[in-house]
Amino acid sequence: MQPSMDFDFAGLDALFSPRSIAVVGATDSPQRIGGIPLDYLLRFGYAGRLHAVNPRADTVQGLSAHARLTDIPEPVDLAIVAVPQAHVTAVLEDAAAARVRSMVLFSSGFAETGAEGAEAQQALQERARAAGIRLIGPNCLGFMRPGHQTYATFSPAPNAGRVKPGRIGLVSQSGAFGAYAYSMARERGLGLSLWATTGNEADVQLADGLAWLARDPETDVIMAYMEGCRDGERLRAALALARERGKPVIMFKVGTSELGAAAAASHTASLAGNDAVYDAVFRQYGVLRAHTISDFFALAASASIAPIPRNRSLGLLTVSGGVGAMMADDASAAGLDVQPLSEAAQRQLLEWVPFAAPRNPVDITGQVTNDVTLLERSAELMMHDRNFASWLGFFAAGGLSDAFWAVLRCLVEKLRAAHPDTLLAICTLCSDARRAEMEALGCLVFSDPSAAIRCIGALASLADAPRAAPLPSACPAQPALQLPAGSLSEARSMELLAKAGMPVVPHQLVRTQQQAAQAVQALGGTIALKVASADIAHKSEVGGVALNLRTAMDAGAAFERILASARQARPEAQLDGALAARMVHGGVECIAGVHRDPVFGPVLMFGLGGIHVEILRDVSLRALPITRDDALAMVQELRTFPILAGARGKPPADLQALADALVALADFAQRCGDTLSSAEINPLIALPREQGGCVAVDALVIGADRCTVPAR
Amino acid sequence: MQPSMDFDFAGLDALFSPRSIAVVGATDSPQRIGGIPLDYLLRFGYAGRLHAVNPRADTVQGLSAHARLTDIPEPVDLAIVAVPQAHVTAVLEDAAAARVRSMVLFSSGFAETGAEGAEAQQALQERARAAGIRLIGPNCLGFMRPGHQTYATFSPAPNAGRVKPGRIGLVSQSGAFGAYAYSMARERGLGLSLWATTGNEADVQLADGLAWLARDPETDVIMAYMEGCRDGERLRAALALARERGKPVIMFKVGTSELGAAAAASHTASLAGNDAVYDAVFRQYGVLRAHTISDFFALAASASIAPIPRNRSLGLLTVSGGVGAMMADDASAAGLDVQPLSEAAQRQLLEWVPFAAPRNPVDITGQVTNDVTLLERSAELMMHDRNFASWLGFFAAGGLSDAFWAVLRCLVEKLRAAHPDTLLAICTLCSDARRAEMEALGCLVFSDPSAAIRCIGALASLADAPRAAPLPSACPAQPALQLPAGSLSEARSMELLAKAGMPVVPHQLVRTQQQAAQAVQALGGTIALKVASADIAHKSEVGGVALNLRTAMDAGAAFERILASARQARPEAQLDGALAARMVHGGVECIAGVHRDPVFGPVLMFGLGGIHVEILRDVSLRALPITRDDALAMVQELRTFPILAGARGKPPADLQALADALVALADFAQRCGDTLSSAEINPLIALPREQGGCVAVDALVIGADRCTVPAR
Repeated sequence: MQPSMDFDFAGLDALFSPRSIAVVGATDSPQRIGGIPLDYLLRFGYAGRLHAVNPRADTVQGLSAHARLTDIPEPVDLAIVAVPQAHVTAVLEDAAAARVRSMVLFSSGFAETGAEGAEAQQALQERARAAGIRLIGPNCLGFMRPGHQTYATFSPAPNAGRVKPGRIGLVSQSGAFGAYAYSMARERGLGLSLWATTGNEADVQLADGLAWLARDPETDVIMAYMEGCRDGERLRAALALARERGKPVIMFKVGTSELGAAAAASHTASLAGNDAVYDAVFRQYGVLRAHTISDFFALAASASIAPIPRNRSLGLLTVSGGVGAMMADDASAAGLDVQPLSEAAQRQLLEWVPFAAPRNPVDITGQVTNDVTLLERSAELMMHDRNFASWLGFFAAGGLSDAFWAVLRCLVEKLRAAHPDTLLAICTLCSDARRAEMEALGCLVFSDPSAAIRCIGALASLADAPRAAPLPSACPAQPALQLPAGSLSEARSMELLAKAGMPVVPHQLVRTQQQAAQAVQALGGTIALKVASADIAHKSEVGGVALNLRTAMDAGAAFERILASARQARPEAQLDGALAARMVHGGVECIAGVHRDPVFGPVLMFGLGGIHVEILRDVSLRALPITRDDALAMVQELRTFPILAGARGKPPADLQALADALVALADFAQRCGDTLSSAEINPLIALPREQGGCVAVDALVIGADRCTVPAR
Repeated sequence: MQPSMDFDFAGLDALFSPRSIAVVGATDSPQRIGGIPLDYLLRFGYAGRLHAVNPRADTVQGLSAHARLTDIPEPVDLAIVAVPQAHVTAVLEDAAAARVRSMVLFSSGFAETGAEGAEAQQALQERARAAGIRLIGPNCLGFMRPGHQTYATFSPAPNAGRVKPGRIGLVSQSGAFGAYAYSMARERGLGLSLWATTGNEADVQLADGLAWLARDPETDVIMAYMEGCRDGERLRAALALARERGKPVIMFKVGTSELGAAAAASHTASLAGNDAVYDAVFRQYGVLRAHTISDFFALAASASIAPIPRNRSLGLLTVSGGVGAMMADDASAAGLDVQPLSEAAQRQLLEWVPFAAPRNPVDITGQVTNDVTLLERSAELMMHDRNFASWLGFFAAGGLSDAFWAVLRCLVEKLRAAHPDTLLAICTLCSDARRAEMEALGCLVFSDPSAAIRCIGALASLADAPRAAPLPSACPAQPALQLPAGSLSEARSMELLAKAGMPVVPHQLVRTQQQAAQAVQALGGTIALKVASADIAHKSEVGGVALNLRTAMDAGAAFERILASARQARPEAQLDGALAARMVHGGVECIAGVHRDPVFGPVLMFGLGGIHVEILRDVSLRALPITRDDALAMVQELRTFPILAGARGKPPADLQALADALVALADFAQRCGDTLSSAEINPLIALPREQGGCVAVDALVIGADRCTVPAR
């Protein structure tokens, strides 16, 4: 892709901000698919010019009907198309002839039905592109823009009550989920700038919707529901754009990993299962991923109501010590920093309430019911003392009391005025009306303290999320390094990686017993011998490995033994001899790899070796390219990182050398372009910092099978 | 404790089911602490006999007032005492004289205020016990029984609306949380049989409340809010009783681990941090622990509305494929079994809806809006095919539509009638009234599918939770084995454990260089030498360990070296020589330990050794006693269990031998009684199953410091 992806914003503007709309297949009945959008547009007051197209009617819902799009005597920005699948091609031709600029296509019967439908969709897509028509659908529920009375949908949801206009944009690949989310937004009182469903995504993808929202001046927060993605680069470009504009993206992605076909040949592919790659990409672009529908809406509502926290500090005020303790535990799990108040502030609090917990969480106890001024005094003292980026108060059922509510409201008004950039939140039972009142002051209201903390933790994570992850650079038609298809031998793999700057263990290919014997001295120490054959991926399974060979005699005997063993186990394999390598002692076994993800291209993986990677699945992932800081972060974010940092009195490993090695591996992958399927170094030994460095001991590079390389 | 704890149910009955109540400190004002309970009792219609006690009034709220409890001319079951701290003693004396059977004591100023208050509380407790008065409080909000119009509380919460009578009993140690929970229950429409707060727990503890509810015929489900527990045996007895009666206990416990003072000397204490022990005990008794307030109420509501699932099988029906996938993922994380339908059933579904997902989750797609009979046909087909123990349908915003609601209601009625023991749940947006309507049919209603799955998963876990965990046996005044206080030497520790049936490595204490040299042959192989001293816990830190000694000469030299090194590092330590032990090769390093928890007594711990225990904190815990099955389960429930089971082509370990070793360690701890502080075996080497056995290589037993052994 190009560093700046061409989203054709002019075309998307014609789609989402049409000055004129034609409904094709318009009918009188406001219950039918062709009648619903026209009914909405008329009833809710669309301000642009509106046309009905129906060859079998003179008027539709009071509008005089045109027989065809080509009969409309003025330019049409958007055609809403509600005709059976069989008529779509003809309508598209008319649209092209009439220079219609964009189209919403409800019709089903395309790719979702199988191969034949997919072909029809492909033809549709090509025709629309050739005609310069931006197309959303087919098989979608269309879109709505509540602030512009633009209803290009046949969803019945608005009939049960309209969502109010607002500053949250929502794009969903699924119509069913989209309709559900519309109702959720309405019930929750959220205002939307755009509601869109992308259906089969013949042209406009989820990413296009996100990119358009990133630029939309009426949108502050972006919600996305995703089931899968065909074009990872497009998605990354859209996410980068949103990040650049400072708009939080709240992502709800369903469907877990389906392991790639390459899984069998390499660990990397199976460990980097699909969903984990999505997850890594989301983190690289500062996307907030929600894992439940509740959190999806809570995060979006919160991001649209309150300022994003400046950092992870959190002040907690509570009227229940137990709930305070629970909130502190939850906060620590969410990566928030519950800094204690200063000694002076704690003394002040204890003067006011002798049995208070004054540290943070501050528990002012039931005493507050006897002296409501305590609430304001304590909260202001906390904020004055530590200027928390986020402040959360737990007030049990206080929000149900008229008297207490008045005190709470007054407190929030003062805090908001004095600390405009602090995220303020309260947790209490109260009516929807009271919640709306508080939200209008820019204060979040939760009923469950754990949900509050989860939400604040997620928003605060944006404070140190990467500002703008690097985008993939243009993929050269002729990569610098062209790999052959299929597995390379260990020797060739090591050679290529060494050339790319990866430190590899001293090694040499030995073809005879004599060469094997000489290798002990040549490599300067104890050596290992491993059978060399591009046909044998798992050398120890065929008895093809001998370790700790100290003498020429040992090495010579081992050479004969492992070759014989391999020959017996795999008579058809082409044996090149054995790879002699110096034994590496000490250090920590790691694994590093890169594999080509079908959606996101090359993905880098790092983890600790052995059981840590196989049983605990503790690996870190990044879609390429990465910076050196990213590489270091990949090492440090492992759960098992303490082992590298020097746990149990062992020496700390050379982390800088690991980061350098990861950067070298990433560069290697970039230079191979589409010719790389995967490369894996297992083990990559991290040496102690004092000794310095790290060293690749075994490697397997696999070139992409040419027929599976996707066309670019 | 005795196998059957004496809860004095007669006394608790007098407290919770009083036939007569006297309010001491009763006042006219229904806003004041002494006026509130009387106001409630009169206004809400308490049916027993009611008396007001106030020496400075003739009448209170229309009742003629008595000057003292002793003036009341009939037996009083319950005295509600709302007097200042200074008057409590006098009131208690009157109560004793008047043979009052139980008392609710609101007054604060006792243990929560410091040492002086604690002394006053201790006196109170002793006087009440001597007088045979069951006492709840002091410093509590009292209790309510909505079904009996019994309001022994000064909480203002009922004034904002009363909770309806129902079959959930709720006991809270915290008044603040209790009041909040009361309001939550009311807003959520939950019915309560008992609402009680236990405050400082001078007499009646949370456990007493739970035990009373376990026997209460009006209670099906028990909710408990806990901050801490003084008497672990009482709690376990209450939980066992609830389990025996088949009543689910939903526990919300806050506050994380505070590490015991013994943490420094042994891993066991710090790894078995307080909260982890509670967690283990809860699992041993089939308690459902909620980690958020939302889940606390959702679990209780669900357990009271729907049958507990027979097993973990779950049928999922959805109108959105994406949400179906998410529910399947959540279900698998929650330990539920989303069994696929039979081939025949899948074929039938595909006949009805060609683009359905027919496996399970069953996605009948938006097609259901065109043909609502699909819903009933699909659901009945699913249940007929697999007779799922739980069934959950996701219907997006369908619950907001009148037409769809009628279909849904009809479906649920039919399913309920045909499958009375299946947990039925739907997930949809709908009004509170509609939710109540569905709940009346015994069907759960959720708005968030993830919350639904979490809840069903927790309830289904009861299906295979232990029916009744063994209770601690009476602790003998004279334990079979009396340990001295403080750390025992390694040699002595090994000897004691070996006698208890623990397989230990062949070893002997050597006091001279010559003995050390002879040990190589005596122990039959390569040996290790470790400096022997009860004063040195960490032998390798003082250079006191030599490994892999193969010859007499090596062993002799090493003996001199390690003793010299230890002497230099710790000149004050008493050295007994060195422990010579045969080196164990191969196998998997484990750690096993037992430590005396201040609340629950001896707690057994097992984990994999080294980094697994130190960094991953992957250990399993059980309060003693345990069965041999428990011991095996402790091994198998580790996250790192695959390493023992034979990961990466390594031989599987002898799991039976590990279970035997754990049972031996548990027996050892039981026989030591209160004289044991902790015992730790690190490493305990699990040998390959083919070779058989396991072997303790290092051990440290610590006797309890006598002055810290709690009085029993």
